[in-house]
Amino acid sequence: MGIDPGLTRCGVGAVEGAIGRPLTLLGADAVRTSPDDDLPQRLVAIERGIDAWLDLHRPDAVAVERVFAQHNLSTVMGTAQASGIALVCAARRGLPVALHTPSEAKAAITGSGRADKAQVGHMVARILRLDSPPKPADAADAVALAVCHIWRGGAQARVAQAQQDFARKVELARQARGR
Amino acid sequence: MGIDPGLTRCGVGAVEGAIGRPLTLLGADAVRTSPDDDLPQRLVAIERGIDAWLDLHRPDAVAVERVFAQHNLSTVMGTAQASGIALVCAARRGLPVALHTPSEAKAAITGSGRADKAQVGHMVARILRLDSPPKPADAADAVALAVCHIWRGGAQARVAQAQQDFARKVELARQARGR
Repeated sequence: MGIDPGLTRCGVGAVEGAIGRPLTLLGADAVRTSPDDDLPQRLVAIERGIDAWLDLHRPDAVAVERVFAQHNLSTVMGTAQASGIALVCAARRGLPVALHTPSEAKAAITGSGRADKAQVGHMVARILRLDSPPKPADAADAVALAVCHIWRGGAQARVAQAQQDFARKVELARQARGR
Repeated sequence: MGIDPGLTRCGVGAVEGAIGRPLTLLGADAVRTSPDDDLPQRLVAIERGIDAWLDLHRPDAVAVERVFAQHNLSTVMGTAQASGIALVCAARRGLPVALHTPSEAKAAITGSGRADKAQVGHMVARILRLDSPPKPADAADAVALAVCHIWRGGAQARVAQAQQDFARKVELARQARGR
């Protein structure tokens, strides 16, 4: 299952299959919350929505889009908070959780890490033999993450380990400098 | 109860009292996670730690430090994710949750929004009649948030409403522009 975290629309997509075999879309949608509600309530709604998807599809693994602080400062905090919820929802069930960058997902699906939303949607539809891309775009992105995760397989596990090792070094260096 | 979100040290502090009456410290500490663990596991550990504090102290309200994207880019994503967990832990119990900026907490405690950690710790100890500030500094910050929340009382509720209205306008404007 792939999760594209967001506060207003959190994309979720479940894909069945394995490397070298046809993949099947089990479902894709967005968990939506209203800007009219306050932040804690919106995060609780996202938690409930993701939990409902995990209950329904019982995935073997969950791939969550890695959020960066660099882009789109106005929404990045909400996106980061939603991604924290997604990671906890998966991890507290004991599911393996992988983080993929948007470029990794795009490159896996389209061959280019710089593909636009239309290209990603087009390739997601083609790979999964759909008449049209899942909607909204956040749902298509979540499906792309799920496909990326299946295809990257073992390579991803090694990349994740390297990223984790790097993050650990950064954190240890930060601690050594004082908070 | 105040929560100063962080991935390595998440400050928690419980304070009893009301405006115009002496305040009492019920407890303060930091929920710690190891940079050796992977991110999803660390977030689950933070969730468990916060839930344990909420179970123990059964607070009437929870004040969480508002995280900004602007400062300390290297750790801000982890801090934002931890803050999302803190908000969900409180909100899914139906507790009122308030967000205070670091400056609001410092100003409430010391009279200056630019006070340093030592000043905050000193004033926290003085207000709560402690021999020394709670340690680590994250615990003292969490206690400062709790005191700030009690003292700001109704004023805070109005400020939060205004902030929420503003955030809503920003989000609606963003949606109108397309994602």
